[in-house]
Amino acid sequence: MRLSRYFLPTLKENPSEAQIVSHRLMLRAGMVRQSSAGIYSWLPMGHKVLMNIQRVVEEEQAAMGCQQMLMPTIQLADLWRESGRYDAYGPEMLRIQDRHGRDMLYGPTNEEQITEIFRDAAKSYKELPKMLYHIQWKFRDEVRPRFGVMRGREFLMKDAYSFDIDDAAGRVSYNKFFVNYLRIYDRLGLKAIPMKADTGPIGGDMSHEFLILADTGESEIACHRDYISMDWVGTDVDYDSDLQPMVDTFTSKYAATDEMRDPEQEAALGDDLITARGIEVGHIFHFGTNYSEPLGAKVTTAEGGEATVSMGSYGVGVSRLVGAVIEASHDDDGIIWPESIAPFKVGLINLKTGDEACDAACDGIYNDLQTAGVEVLMDDREIRAGGKFADMDLIGLPWQIIAGPRGLKDGMVELKNRATGEREDLSIESALSRMTA
Amino acid sequence: MRLSRYFLPTLKENPSEAQIVSHRLMLRAGMVRQSSAGIYSWLPMGHKVLMNIQRVVEEEQAAMGCQQMLMPTIQLADLWRESGRYDAYGPEMLRIQDRHGRDMLYGPTNEEQITEIFRDAAKSYKELPKMLYHIQWKFRDEVRPRFGVMRGREFLMKDAYSFDIDDAAGRVSYNKFFVNYLRIYDRLGLKAIPMKADTGPIGGDMSHEFLILADTGESEIACHRDYISMDWVGTDVDYDSDLQPMVDTFTSKYAATDEMRDPEQEAALGDDLITARGIEVGHIFHFGTNYSEPLGAKVTTAEGGEATVSMGSYGVGVSRLVGAVIEASHDDDGIIWPESIAPFKVGLINLKTGDEACDAACDGIYNDLQTAGVEVLMDDREIRAGGKFADMDLIGLPWQIIAGPRGLKDGMVELKNRATGEREDLSIESALSRMTA
Repeated sequence: MRLSRYFLPTLKENPSEAQIVSHRLMLRAGMVRQSSAGIYSWLPMGHKVLMNIQRVVEEEQAAMGCQQMLMPTIQLADLWRESGRYDAYGPEMLRIQDRHGRDMLYGPTNEEQITEIFRDAAKSYKELPKMLYHIQWKFRDEVRPRFGVMRGREFLMKDAYSFDIDDAAGRVSYNKFFVNYLRIYDRLGLKAIPMKADTGPIGGDMSHEFLILADTGESEIACHRDYISMDWVGTDVDYDSDLQPMVDTFTSKYAATDEMRDPEQEAALGDDLITARGIEVGHIFHFGTNYSEPLGAKVTTAEGGEATVSMGSYGVGVSRLVGAVIEASHDDDGIIWPESIAPFKVGLINLKTGDEACDAACDGIYNDLQTAGVEVLMDDREIRAGGKFADMDLIGLPWQIIAGPRGLKDGMVELKNRATGEREDLSIESALSRMTA
Repeated sequence: MRLSRYFLPTLKENPSEAQIVSHRLMLRAGMVRQSSAGIYSWLPMGHKVLMNIQRVVEEEQAAMGCQQMLMPTIQLADLWRESGRYDAYGPEMLRIQDRHGRDMLYGPTNEEQITEIFRDAAKSYKELPKMLYHIQWKFRDEVRPRFGVMRGREFLMKDAYSFDIDDAAGRVSYNKFFVNYLRIYDRLGLKAIPMKADTGPIGGDMSHEFLILADTGESEIACHRDYISMDWVGTDVDYDSDLQPMVDTFTSKYAATDEMRDPEQEAALGDDLITARGIEVGHIFHFGTNYSEPLGAKVTTAEGGEATVSMGSYGVGVSRLVGAVIEASHDDDGIIWPESIAPFKVGLINLKTGDEACDAACDGIYNDLQTAGVEVLMDDREIRAGGKFADMDLIGLPWQIIAGPRGLKDGMVELKNRATGEREDLSIESALSRMTA
């Protein structure tokens, strides 16, 4: 993409309304614009990152055998009356009447809806286990939306649901998601710590939140020091194997969110205790028959009887993750994208747009990278070099190729690593082969 | 995917609520389930087709230089008051109050919102032309939703917007979308005829609808017979070239929707006139400064003055296209997917699940296809062959490989083309090389 044509309205000044760094940087880097309180439009570069994160989530969900579908945003209130949650859910639920006066709502989550779909379709134990998910916009009418996309009202969430013949089988599904989530965060360059969590309005007897540590986190968490240095899940997970030992490794030590903290256990930890601010990036629940019972989701058993299915739900905030990654990966100059979700791998800076030789060389590098399938953003704007450096650092592409008349005379460019700040003078060929390797 | 694990609840009986074939087949093939009137959940196979169509649209929009972004579903009523459309839009608009009593709405379209974003970001003629689009769920509270996803209330639409320095430049952008849409329909196996159209609530001085001919179409259209045999747009479109001649080719003959028909012109056509039912699959508008004027979207000109930008909007109903493709491509047995958007390329029928040799051979074919990157759905259910044949025809995958004990003894399978019904006996190797070619 040529920056001269790209819709990337960067800002020089820090927007006064943004209290945390990810919100500030997303506005400054032209990734989002506020539409109304807690509701954002994703401009092209922000959208690209959002979709890159979605792709990682999709790939990992597919790897564990979870099937993608898509439920609508608007649901019938009557369905929520069946589960008893319509009245229980507070003013955070956006309630709507359609033109015929029917009570509807903008879904904040989908337990009722997926249970209804499953109930009407599945008949036999042979169809179990089943894991289904969708990635859809949700709405929660926060009283004070803040922190940009981190605590918005309209947000993109991946929510998955598992269906099993009994709670023991449900536990197996739960473990799959537990491990799967660690894989997802790892690919996004995040270290997320699983913590025992309150089940809140979803209900159930087992629940973990996944939190990353960041100074701007909204809740105070406490955990054993070992979590910081813990080895992460490998890339090859066999989801058909027994994952309990792996789950045990990640849950054996103390780790608790705000409302679950235990002063006694913490006192016993002594110097091994860490307290910090945390950002929730996922939440998983096993709630057994809490929804399948009132909604009547049953299957026949191998013995000829009937069983109410055991369920769980598993949420990852896709839009929130964009902010969380920035909270975890930035410096004073701007964002530092992990390569796995960067909007472009390479930023190519033409130091002298308008200079014939410079333009030709940059066009050549640009075309060669594109031909090799490397995503590149070329700054071909007619502005001063200082502005180009600042914008390129701000938007945080992993690599910068800086091409100016002086170096190009000898066929040389500069390659800069955004994360480390390291710079190298290289021939064009070497720079290309480094980027396409 | 193994059908025994896939969430594909097919139906044997025709659902009584479905009046048209696409609605019937989408329900029977387990693609969608109704959530409430005019609102659908997309089950895994339906979701796959929906995303395949979305991918075609995305690829073609990128090819013409249109940049993807994403605007939210919920908008501020005040923004629509600025354009004057809040009151003008009837009860089809879903109006909402948030917890603070602010008037909001579920966007039926996004002219106001994109104009506001552009206004706040763009300053100079140098940033023009610009083309932006998003693919987002919309809501129109139809009084009588019907025909399944063809006329739903919550629907997925691609809407694009162009920004130009004046109407002449706007015409160039308009032509790009005109040609681009013909490309999109062509890739979906649809012959869509562009017709002069009423501009309706969007407004403007130039507008075309794209319609495909189908018996179940909701409007009566009339056009010159030549459109039926007209050569379609090639695969290589140079969007920087003058597209006016190509647009002229497709607009020179008479073609009109319901409300635009002209009895005099039709009488003059004589035998060359065709009247038929049509399904709208796209609508493009050039409306100049209708929104940029009231919302104040201006840029500085090269001469140092100021210009209100000239705009157009361009819509394709992505979810509606799923139904439209089925209306255009089915037979008595079920759907016939064009390969470009088929949920799987190959359906592999194991005629005798449980037979060791049969299972082993099918697993081998299945793995070989997957390794070669061919998407395959294997029917490994323990049901009778008749049910497998019926379901495979119903869901309409382009190719079927039918493997039974008798043929496999000699290393042979049957290859069936769903569209033509042609069957061939082939060695496993030949069948594989045909499918991976």
